[in-house]
Amino acid sequence: MTQTTKAVRTIYWEGGLDGACRLIEQTRLPGTLEEIVCETPEQMWDAIKRLAVRGAPAIGVAAGFGTVLGIRSSRATDADGFLADLRRTTEYLATSRPTAVNLFWGLDRMSRVAAEAVAAGTTDVDELKTCMLDEAQRIWEEDREICRALGRHGSALLNEGEGALTHCNAGGLATADYGTALAVFFSAQEAGKTFRVFADETRPLNQGSRLTSWELFQRGIDVTLICDNMAGQVMKEGRIDKVFVGSDRVAANGDAANKIGTYSVSILAKAHGIPFYVVAPTSTFDMKTAHGDQIPIEQRDPDEIRRGYSGGLNAPEGVKVYNPAFDVTPHENIAGIVTEFGVIENPDTEAVKKHFMEHGLLTDEG
Amino acid sequence: MTQTTKAVRTIYWEGGLDGACRLIEQTRLPGTLEEIVCETPEQMWDAIKRLAVRGAPAIGVAAGFGTVLGIRSSRATDADGFLADLRRTTEYLATSRPTAVNLFWGLDRMSRVAAEAVAAGTTDVDELKTCMLDEAQRIWEEDREICRALGRHGSALLNEGEGALTHCNAGGLATADYGTALAVFFSAQEAGKTFRVFADETRPLNQGSRLTSWELFQRGIDVTLICDNMAGQVMKEGRIDKVFVGSDRVAANGDAANKIGTYSVSILAKAHGIPFYVVAPTSTFDMKTAHGDQIPIEQRDPDEIRRGYSGGLNAPEGVKVYNPAFDVTPHENIAGIVTEFGVIENPDTEAVKKHFMEHGLLTDEG
Repeated sequence: MTQTTKAVRTIYWEGGLDGACRLIEQTRLPGTLEEIVCETPEQMWDAIKRLAVRGAPAIGVAAGFGTVLGIRSSRATDADGFLADLRRTTEYLATSRPTAVNLFWGLDRMSRVAAEAVAAGTTDVDELKTCMLDEAQRIWEEDREICRALGRHGSALLNEGEGALTHCNAGGLATADYGTALAVFFSAQEAGKTFRVFADETRPLNQGSRLTSWELFQRGIDVTLICDNMAGQVMKEGRIDKVFVGSDRVAANGDAANKIGTYSVSILAKAHGIPFYVVAPTSTFDMKTAHGDQIPIEQRDPDEIRRGYSGGLNAPEGVKVYNPAFDVTPHENIAGIVTEFGVIENPDTEAVKKHFMEHGLLTDEG
Repeated sequence: MTQTTKAVRTIYWEGGLDGACRLIEQTRLPGTLEEIVCETPEQMWDAIKRLAVRGAPAIGVAAGFGTVLGIRSSRATDADGFLADLRRTTEYLATSRPTAVNLFWGLDRMSRVAAEAVAAGTTDVDELKTCMLDEAQRIWEEDREICRALGRHGSALLNEGEGALTHCNAGGLATADYGTALAVFFSAQEAGKTFRVFADETRPLNQGSRLTSWELFQRGIDVTLICDNMAGQVMKEGRIDKVFVGSDRVAANGDAANKIGTYSVSILAKAHGIPFYVVAPTSTFDMKTAHGDQIPIEQRDPDEIRRGYSGGLNAPEGVKVYNPAFDVTPHENIAGIVTEFGVIENPDTEAVKKHFMEHGLLTDEG
């Protein structure tokens, strides 16, 4: 593969209500850049489950387009029937990845907008379907704007000449556009800064080596791939000044769930006095979850580790495997959470609440 | 593969001076259990370089047998000619793996014994060749005894019902027999203890998944395989009470070089209040190296990470990679170093020296 700077579209809708959602088959990267077409909610469920589409914001967008795929063929003749079909669709899509709060956020938003339209007097089912496509498109457009804002605020934290470490993939492939943690690097590059990035491989699915190093390399950013177990050594050698990671779900106290291994990186960063930043849009915050230990951790297929990503045998056939997909980084290990509105420094329940109040996301004691 | 308890011989010599060294081709485990035959020093150099034979003590044994392979065809007609051929052989074998102190230890021992035999009046070249084979066999036998002693002292640290974590492979495959860190578990099993082991996968060459989990599983020990980046999470969940790792080289102050990722594990263990033990025979200590930061760190082929162990493309073809084979765990992070004589608790320069003096390995201020 040669280095290019071709922009790619992670996920988008093509056509009108009878169109389809197209997305990059991320499991085939970096060897093959291929789009798949989702025309049914089952195809979208499968794409989310298989991680063909992954990353919190992109999953929110997938939830919107997946909902459109589920209800556009509804035979309901009235609003109640339509809302019932909508509920079946969202409940079905919700089972694809239980840890991803943006999935629920996207599905909830679609449901709420439909309910509001009905409450406002829209009873025509075709009109409601169009309203759903419009809302899904709006989620997609908003995500693009949010990515740019995250990059702007985050890149202000990265100084000229510094080294940064990132874990997993929180790039353009994780969003509709520019990424969350990687948006920091794309913005810094646009601003003309010189810096270097170390990308953790991120076992067992290798999102760091397959996706993050690909995205950064493709854009001409100075990226070095390391195995997860090298992060401590690279920090000890003084190569890392800041850590930037994404998050799948931030609790109200600032505890942040992210790809397995993030918690370990946060401890290593703390031990070396390196600021650790979480880059996450406010849609990733789950204000109903007070503490990170209330976030359920998805357990995945042991063969992801036993067989390795490429399918080759990597361990004895029957050996026990423990394969948590996520871990939770306690807010004590986080120097700041970058949202689309700015940075929540030293995040805790009070600081998160203050940030949400200031930006009109919480209007009372709730 | 089905679970068996068949004992395997990691490395051994078959026949007399015209015989050969046979060893398990460890790069093919756990899929295939195959012995290779080394009949020339070049074959042994290659086996060490490729990690077909690996692990500090086994490399010491390989150094001994490799030396025999190099000098048995010497056409020297006197002692001086023989010693010159011997020097060429040991200098050649020394280039196979620059970080492995046991390689140098084994080569030095062979050279010293030859020099002593000559000094004692042996001038017959055939006699000197036989003396070399005898010495290599003695290294092999001593290693077996040392492994048993390491297991005895180390297993006393593992209490009934506890969970242990290990990194890389310091098992029977790393030695002539019973292992170093894994000897702890084999001894504990023999003593009838109930315990469980978590084995780090150990990227990029996966010695943990391919070798450690295979050795433990094969012996019926309760082993669970995890990715390197899961160690912090497993500790946080309270599953780990002790960490046991091997070492490729221990400095005089107790700093211990071991497979990359060991340093990170030591920081994670410290952050969770978990005692971290290094299990290493005294032959692994390099008393001429005062501090761990003087230990050279071998850098390995980037394609080990880019292509993955199985050869499948895992990252963009040309992406930069940093691939240190080892790191150094500072003695402050080590609760104890288990040697064949007992445990050096809270190791530092004084404690290591005291241990060596007590056991007759240092007789003066040297």
